Amino acid sequence: MPPKDYQPGTYGKIRYSTRAHYDRDTVFPILDCGLVAHVGFVLNSRPMVIPMAYVRVDETLYIHGAKAARIIKAGAETAPVCLTVTHIDGLVVARSAFNHSVNYRSVVVHGELRNVTDIEEKRHALVAVTNYLLPDRWDEVRPMTDKELRSTGVLAVDIETAAAKIRQGPPIDEDEDYELPIWAGVLPVTQSMGAPEEDPRLLDGVEAPASLAAAQQKFSASSNQP
Amino acid sequence: MPPKDYQPGTYGKIRYSTRAHYDRDTVFPILDCGLVAHVGFVLNSRPMVIPMAYVRVDETLYIHGAKAARIIKAGAETAPVCLTVTHIDGLVVARSAFNHSVNYRSVVVHGELRNVTDIEEKRHALVAVTNYLLPDRWDEVRPMTDKELRSTGVLAVDIETAAAKIRQGPPIDEDEDYELPIWAGVLPVTQSMGAPEEDPRLLDGVEAPASLAAAQQKFSASSNQP
Repeated sequence: MPPKDYQPGTYGKIRYSTRAHYDRDTVFPILDCGLVAHVGFVLNSRPMVIPMAYVRVDETLYIHGAKAARIIKAGAETAPVCLTVTHIDGLVVARSAFNHSVNYRSVVVHGELRNVTDIEEKRHALVAVTNYLLPDRWDEVRPMTDKELRSTGVLAVDIETAAAKIRQGPPIDEDEDYELPIWAGVLPVTQSMGAPEEDPRLLDGVEAPASLAAAQQKFSASSNQP
Repeated sequence: MPPKDYQPGTYGKIRYSTRAHYDRDTVFPILDCGLVAHVGFVLNSRPMVIPMAYVRVDETLYIHGAKAARIIKAGAETAPVCLTVTHIDGLVVARSAFNHSVNYRSVVVHGELRNVTDIEEKRHALVAVTNYLLPDRWDEVRPMTDKELRSTGVLAVDIETAAAKIRQGPPIDEDEDYELPIWAGVLPVTQSMGAPEEDPRLLDGVEAPASLAAAQQKFSASSNQP
């Protein structure tokens, strides 16, 4: 059984000192309601950050994209990767510019990126990422062919370290500034899913499936904000 | 006068081949409606990605955070950086799992990160980032002190290359799948700002300032989505 908490890595210490959380009970819920991860890797000694769809399955994150496999250098087995998921919850409006801030929840994961070549692990990862974004969608669609399965790139990151950072609540102003007649508070930021837009080529009489309402519920702000 | 288009860098070619745009008319609007940038750098040969507030001023991005200056290695003048801004616009629901996708707009910027030490450039950057998130907020707050100005870390990235990547519209299914009675379309994702929440310690009679409504307008989905 893995330890309950992730250990902070040397890199994790840089910015995640004051408000960092390493326990799974904090880290996993933040990972489990994001629509996109920003995946960072090193290419020719330079940093590269690209947005990718992902899903967490236990202690592993799977990421998915057409060119995903090319992140790993030809000939290499793995590559160091940093995967960051961020939710912006509000603008923190203070009485001084200095104390303005942003309410957010983020998780920074470090690990080694590996190409998923085992066909069964790849299938499980694709089912997981599809059903993560659209609950039980896998059972609503035309079955995946072997050719599609082979030609889809899937990468995995087994989580080595993970740090959550959270800022919530009203502004924290200087003591003397609380007496100023200046507005302060929070401007909430929310993400929501709107009404489904039908494909122009949808066949007549095809009803919206259960996965749409489930996704709207799952990713609406009221479902996952603290 | 700078060239109209950014040149694709060697790293830019990896993933941004099919739908990449390098012209300022595409790149700038995507940068100019984001609330957070994911900033990637290399630390001890490993990638690190952290979310940060930012603003674009002409050809420069300023980023802001308490520990920002520590991204640059002690003794070094600059550090290579990748700054990515992503807007998720919808889940693309196809008739096969294989053709599911995400509608999004993203920009990947590469450049050298430098610490802003010139006090006037730092002041201009702080005014810019404050007024970017909350239009004209700088004139509503208690003036910044010299001590605050000195103790705030600001970093700048002069844009060397920038690539926008955009996916919009309905799913693109296999020809034969269009005859299947399976729902397809787009589940729109929008970001919005809610009603301002007053600080519990707000003085009686202080009205919500103009910056709040301006921010709600500026960052609402209908204002900036394509």
